[in-house]
Amino acid sequence: MKKDKFVLGIDFGTESGRVVIFRLRDGEEVAAEVVPYPDGVIDEKLPGGPELEPDWALQNPRDYFLVLEKGVPKSLRAAGLKADEVVGIGTDFTGSTPLATRKDGTPLCLLRKYRREPHAWPKLWKHHAAQPEANRINEIGRERDEDFIRIYGGKYSSEWFFSKVLQVLNEAPAIYAAADKFIEGADWIVWQLTGEEKRNSSSAGYKAMWVKGKGFPSPDFFRAVHPRLECVGKEKLSRDFYSPGTRAGGLTAYWARRTGLKEGTPVCTGILDGHVAAPAMTVTQPGSLALIMGTSLCHMLQGTKQQTVEGICGAVEDGMVPGFWGYEAGQYAVGDLFAWFFKQGVPESIFREARKVKIPFTAELERRAAALQPGASGLLALDWWNGNRSLLIDADLTGLVLGVSLATRPEEIYRALIEATAFGTRLIIEAFENAGLASNTLVACGGLPEKNKLLMQIYADITGREIKLAKQLQTCSALGAAMFGAVAAGAYASIFEAAEHMAHLQNLTYRSRPEHHEIYNQLYEEYKTLHDYFGRGSNDVMKRLKGLRTEEIVT
Amino acid sequence: MKKDKFVLGIDFGTESGRVVIFRLRDGEEVAAEVVPYPDGVIDEKLPGGPELEPDWALQNPRDYFLVLEKGVPKSLRAAGLKADEVVGIGTDFTGSTPLATRKDGTPLCLLRKYRREPHAWPKLWKHHAAQPEANRINEIGRERDEDFIRIYGGKYSSEWFFSKVLQVLNEAPAIYAAADKFIEGADWIVWQLTGEEKRNSSSAGYKAMWVKGKGFPSPDFFRAVHPRLECVGKEKLSRDFYSPGTRAGGLTAYWARRTGLKEGTPVCTGILDGHVAAPAMTVTQPGSLALIMGTSLCHMLQGTKQQTVEGICGAVEDGMVPGFWGYEAGQYAVGDLFAWFFKQGVPESIFREARKVKIPFTAELERRAAALQPGASGLLALDWWNGNRSLLIDADLTGLVLGVSLATRPEEIYRALIEATAFGTRLIIEAFENAGLASNTLVACGGLPEKNKLLMQIYADITGREIKLAKQLQTCSALGAAMFGAVAAGAYASIFEAAEHMAHLQNLTYRSRPEHHEIYNQLYEEYKTLHDYFGRGSNDVMKRLKGLRTEEIVT
Repeated sequence: MKKDKFVLGIDFGTESGRVVIFRLRDGEEVAAEVVPYPDGVIDEKLPGGPELEPDWALQNPRDYFLVLEKGVPKSLRAAGLKADEVVGIGTDFTGSTPLATRKDGTPLCLLRKYRREPHAWPKLWKHHAAQPEANRINEIGRERDEDFIRIYGGKYSSEWFFSKVLQVLNEAPAIYAAADKFIEGADWIVWQLTGEEKRNSSSAGYKAMWVKGKGFPSPDFFRAVHPRLECVGKEKLSRDFYSPGTRAGGLTAYWARRTGLKEGTPVCTGILDGHVAAPAMTVTQPGSLALIMGTSLCHMLQGTKQQTVEGICGAVEDGMVPGFWGYEAGQYAVGDLFAWFFKQGVPESIFREARKVKIPFTAELERRAAALQPGASGLLALDWWNGNRSLLIDADLTGLVLGVSLATRPEEIYRALIEATAFGTRLIIEAFENAGLASNTLVACGGLPEKNKLLMQIYADITGREIKLAKQLQTCSALGAAMFGAVAAGAYASIFEAAEHMAHLQNLTYRSRPEHHEIYNQLYEEYKTLHDYFGRGSNDVMKRLKGLRTEEIVT
Repeated sequence: MKKDKFVLGIDFGTESGRVVIFRLRDGEEVAAEVVPYPDGVIDEKLPGGPELEPDWALQNPRDYFLVLEKGVPKSLRAAGLKADEVVGIGTDFTGSTPLATRKDGTPLCLLRKYRREPHAWPKLWKHHAAQPEANRINEIGRERDEDFIRIYGGKYSSEWFFSKVLQVLNEAPAIYAAADKFIEGADWIVWQLTGEEKRNSSSAGYKAMWVKGKGFPSPDFFRAVHPRLECVGKEKLSRDFYSPGTRAGGLTAYWARRTGLKEGTPVCTGILDGHVAAPAMTVTQPGSLALIMGTSLCHMLQGTKQQTVEGICGAVEDGMVPGFWGYEAGQYAVGDLFAWFFKQGVPESIFREARKVKIPFTAELERRAAALQPGASGLLALDWWNGNRSLLIDADLTGLVLGVSLATRPEEIYRALIEATAFGTRLIIEAFENAGLASNTLVACGGLPEKNKLLMQIYADITGREIKLAKQLQTCSALGAAMFGAVAAGAYASIFEAAEHMAHLQNLTYRSRPEHHEIYNQLYEEYKTLHDYFGRGSNDVMKRLKGLRTEEIVT
């Protein structure tokens, strides 16, 4: 019997990195190490530096190194593997997370000269302070009728690459000048591991307006946005982009030493953490929709051609798997929203009851919420606690709870928040469907499907669809990265073959209950009306209130 | 030197009754006893009987007796007074609180035969289950262009007398038939004390469509509402109504014995608890507005003539003081709204911090909320946790919080709720003003002004007016009742003379800060837009959601 081989998936997340080792022949997980980032999300104050403005979110690149140095050796030890049993490495990364670097890849924030300058640090995906820049890009894009406006669902997001780069240029031109390159974290980490700056086409497509066969928008467009941006592509990015599954290079001697892996081990080009999960969830063909349910929610779908879908985050040819257009949509706050409620909205009585029956307070809340009937609370919420990603692509929208009365209980609010996120998902499913991209089955992964059965049932009831769960609920991104690593290493001929062997679903299926679905249809109509009223310009009160927040009274 | 004389004010509230003794010459409070109602507000289950539907709120008449039997002797003892030192008695009562009684005044709910029948019990002011009946009354009223539609701000409320009586007729016709009389609690308690059924014109005017010189609407109107209601006035009410300050009779021997007061002590006709407070707050002339700030908020104003004001609760000639039209508006949930938030919305972290610094958690919340700037939270709320009393007169509206984000903290929500109630009050002030009833000064009494300085300052900042506090913050209704008791006893020639001697203001004044007022003006515009959108028919989502609440799924 041939001896088993293994692949490594390294998943660089928001608060931590995760190193997972999978068996090549069947995708079995044999070791997993989570390495929290010591600096986490930097959203209040730079380490040893000045305070940040609201809506900022940065990361420290040293934290990425730590994931490699600590996570890889520990996982190898845990699995009892030798270096030569690992045949390939794949990585995935949050995005858009642009780093400003020197020519050699050194992040500016690691240089003494720039470390107190916020714009020298990597801007995390959920950095929302570049909304004025996004507005400018959209304005010029619409004026000039640029391709990306159509492809990106009508709006370029403040979370994406050029919004953040333009913010650097606007607010810290010296940093813009000092940056020889702006590069996605996904590509930067692969550059570090292999010594090869081989950028991936998927991040470029989803986050940076790059289109296969066409490249970036023209210099004319960029000049119209800002004169100094004209040649940003040529000056600070790259012309060559490689599709998922491409071998970027072999592991350097330096990183082989620091991780305990073998020098030259094939490393795949980088991929975004959401997109990489789709094939790991068996979503390699049109017809099923991947839901990656964590702090935020990503919706991934394969299509056979390019279609215009309102308000999605992107559609990229070969974006997730070759031969298909990979469509992405998303919701900014899902797990984050519930975490907010757990911290800011749960009264003592729930804690007291939970202690009495010796369960976590979140379980007590779920137990109570599960006993409620749809519509029984009279509550309805808009889930925009962190803005709206799809379909409105507007970071300046905020959350709403309606229907509160003196009889309203916390578990009712909790359930209304869950329902609101599910209504948001249904809107996205229907926007895809209206564009000819139907999805009859949903496949979920992430932290929420494991923790929260009520949530899954409500999603099934509200969408009227069945929901299956990926086997690797918590590590589907790492599995996807490892699968691409296996392809890059030549162990499988394609990501489809890798998925056939390594990607699996659980037996559990959540099914929509017609009588619940029917009541939810009525609530959904109300949700849509409020969604349009507050989200499509009938009443921009949320934006005006956000504008007022900065008006300081000096007394 | 002449020996001091005293008057008794007895205030029948929502959760308790209060007996207060005041010195006749200067209104000094010499004793006060609060007697909680053992059955409190009956809103879930009849004592020993069946469960109640949502929106019901009843009281037990035995609890009223307990206030007299316990409260009066205790307060006399506490003040060290003998029976003959008390020259008069005044009472006030919540309303509309109709009792269904036998001819002799016995409430049906005290008869064994009817005690398990919810409709046999007194319906408290905040009983909101008669909304369909109110709708019917308004529909017929508008069709026939009845006077009361104009006088009551365009809408008759579900809280008022005939809505509740019609609900009895619709849902329990046998109880309607068995009720020889329907009578306001305010009049019923005076009947008990004196043996005289002398109903007061003020309750009849504010709650039962009675107009001085005209009486009730015509039998034609009542027949159109419901055939069996045609002669309700003649059959079950009364023709004679007496204005505030009239002597109803002398204390009966029975109640003299049970209370320790002197038989024959003059007792004034009943008055509603809000209205009676106005003269005790020095609001006996046009130009200043009384705010009675407790669980709900009542706004009282004197006018020289009858004017049409949108959405107020009523305007009654001689309604509060003789010679003026007494205008009333109100908000259903103010203190109640904050109490809801304290119970259902305050997270553990606030409690923990409060314990650490050894202050009540409400003080910790107020401390944090007071440190915020207007508009800084980005939040805006509609204060309809218990429906909207003025200007919309609609019990089916519900509360809303808008602008929530992942950064939102509980003290910001708390402040937004306070602000929402203040915006509601400002709308009412402006509705009066637009009808020619200006109020430059606000005078507050009730539990909130004493407890919550932040609230008072926000009300001043939002309304742009100065707010003074009544001296008798907690006992202004009892003082008002006692003042009318003094008039009924002939100790003062009029309520104006009584007010000159007995009613006082505190030195403290809350003043509007222009720079806060200016930001609040912007928020107020947003509030009005949402108020009209959800309250005036553009989007009746709140009502539809409330309708859904009753759809039960049988699984």
